[in-house]
Amino acid sequence: MTQPRYTARVQSLPATVPFVGPETQERAMGAPFRARIGANESVFGPSPLALEAISRAGADAWMYGDPEVHDLRQALARHHDVAPENIIVGEGIDGLLGYLVRLLVAEGDAVVTSDGAYPTFNYHVAGFGGVLHKVPYRDDREDLDALLAKAREVDAKLIYVANPDNPMGSWHSAEGMQAMIDALPEGCALALDEAYADTAPPQAIPPLDTSHPRVIRFRTFSKAYGLAGMRVGYGLAQQDFISAFAKIRNHFGMGRVAQAAALAALGDQAYLERTIDKIAAARETIAEIARANGLTPLPSATNFVTVDCGRDGDYARAVVAALAAEGVFVRMPFVAPQDRCIRVSCAPGEALALFSEALPRALKAAG
Amino acid sequence: MTQPRYTARVQSLPATVPFVGPETQERAMGAPFRARIGANESVFGPSPLALEAISRAGADAWMYGDPEVHDLRQALARHHDVAPENIIVGEGIDGLLGYLVRLLVAEGDAVVTSDGAYPTFNYHVAGFGGVLHKVPYRDDREDLDALLAKAREVDAKLIYVANPDNPMGSWHSAEGMQAMIDALPEGCALALDEAYADTAPPQAIPPLDTSHPRVIRFRTFSKAYGLAGMRVGYGLAQQDFISAFAKIRNHFGMGRVAQAAALAALGDQAYLERTIDKIAAARETIAEIARANGLTPLPSATNFVTVDCGRDGDYARAVVAALAAEGVFVRMPFVAPQDRCIRVSCAPGEALALFSEALPRALKAAG
Repeated sequence: MTQPRYTARVQSLPATVPFVGPETQERAMGAPFRARIGANESVFGPSPLALEAISRAGADAWMYGDPEVHDLRQALARHHDVAPENIIVGEGIDGLLGYLVRLLVAEGDAVVTSDGAYPTFNYHVAGFGGVLHKVPYRDDREDLDALLAKAREVDAKLIYVANPDNPMGSWHSAEGMQAMIDALPEGCALALDEAYADTAPPQAIPPLDTSHPRVIRFRTFSKAYGLAGMRVGYGLAQQDFISAFAKIRNHFGMGRVAQAAALAALGDQAYLERTIDKIAAARETIAEIARANGLTPLPSATNFVTVDCGRDGDYARAVVAALAAEGVFVRMPFVAPQDRCIRVSCAPGEALALFSEALPRALKAAG
Repeated sequence: MTQPRYTARVQSLPATVPFVGPETQERAMGAPFRARIGANESVFGPSPLALEAISRAGADAWMYGDPEVHDLRQALARHHDVAPENIIVGEGIDGLLGYLVRLLVAEGDAVVTSDGAYPTFNYHVAGFGGVLHKVPYRDDREDLDALLAKAREVDAKLIYVANPDNPMGSWHSAEGMQAMIDALPEGCALALDEAYADTAPPQAIPPLDTSHPRVIRFRTFSKAYGLAGMRVGYGLAQQDFISAFAKIRNHFGMGRVAQAAALAALGDQAYLERTIDKIAAARETIAEIARANGLTPLPSATNFVTVDCGRDGDYARAVVAALAAEGVFVRMPFVAPQDRCIRVSCAPGEALALFSEALPRALKAAG
């Protein structure tokens, strides 16, 4: 009997995945990581109010979630001083990026990103047959001028930028980002991934203006809010842009408990503030540990610190592997020259103490 | 400034949604439904062990879910006596149907379903540019021979069948379904939606054989398991078919708490059995209420009863509206002649008592 007739696009796709999960590594090692500081999760955890909401909403878990995600969108609208119609809530920014790419990118359409930026975005673009054009980072930051120039050159339908940036932790000023938005070529949309906006200096985030018809900004409950496991992200854009998602999204994709958890987390801004303070302190601790080992921590506006190991990608990969052997899960940039670095998530003292203890041995093992 | 350049496909899509949620109706009415028996959720709720798991997993909600969904797939593999490689877990059957359609259906590809079957499947097919060919129900059941004949006629890449059927509650025998599988045309895949398998008589479900390369069977935690709000469905198929999903799925789409909830629910088969008994009893109660009001309950293998109101779609729509005005949420088939019916979900006594009370008034109001 024959196989199913997959589309030509699907037949052309590799069987790769954007990321291997730490659980896969743990199963291979036969032991759990002692410090899980590689996925930029918030090891500080979510607000106790979110935990309460999860428990409470469990009793309602027999009901599908509201497909309009009404209450959360209302609360987000108040929080950001926009209209609910400016907000699309989805299954994490990953899920929303998939929808966005599907809205815009048909076979052969040009898309621009930075070489070494978010692999899941690239995965979606390849998945819908888009042609990715990459520009290099400059001084460990995304090169906004080069992205714009490339977009004009290839007549891109979409540019992806993260500000602050993952995996480098770097950022642009609000003025710099706004200048990019103002210079966006006609016909080109901008996916501005602000997953790390909560931990950025305020002067890095341009005003939340939803009047541009082709700019969509993404935020998430997976980072500073500490709810990666609930899968709640959202996009902010002009109403027409947001409406387009309703043509293709999984309308009942947002779980009821996830919606309740995010709503409660959003309501506890005091907890978020305290977490952000802890993240800032942890950035300092990670930087000190790096320096004490002769490494160079890069400035960070995120909930992780990217640490320059001073040599090439092979060396950094060896450091990551040696840390994993010590029970410490970290990740690293995929692409040279950023892959001279490792990327360490902020975490409470115990986890960073394990990192501090393991790092000298890992550096030695890496040679 | 111009709008984003949406794909031609997206531009052609209507702004419709497959279903309006009950919450939307509640907001319009300004009051919550007193009985929520319209979405075939399990009003009996999930296992207490699942509720415990949700509370407990909340503490881990800061971590992304395992992208391999390892533990749940292992447990499902044991439960169904297949290999974990035969199982894809996704964001409800809705999400998995979206992935399946994307794998197989390119612009202009033929797909076959029954006229009046699951609208969300049709939504996905339209969303990827497939051409839907519909065959009528026969005697309130999906017409397997007609589906096969149509598939051969139009060289379909995919057929959708639900057994037991939603919205009619009807079913085919295991032999009948197996005969359809055996007669599946070369090059045509079968999406066999078994969301209601748990409440069906055993002789309605063909043996779980994952050897056919083009048959995928879908199950869910949203119905009898009572976890619609957690969004966990799964597909069972030959390993190669399952592997294809890894090329396009949202790898980190399955939340950590959702995975834990499903795992706990699966582990409590005694609770599931008791729920199935309650569902069977509730089917009888709904049937009695229908008969007492001069209506005809149809036989049901699902967690709902489809009730023939004996007149046309306008009348049934008026009954549904009048029940809503009474605070009772039910739904109905969309397409004639099935739309002579209303569809009532099984529920505990209180909810059905409200239905029983409201129905005579609703029938009177509907004229």
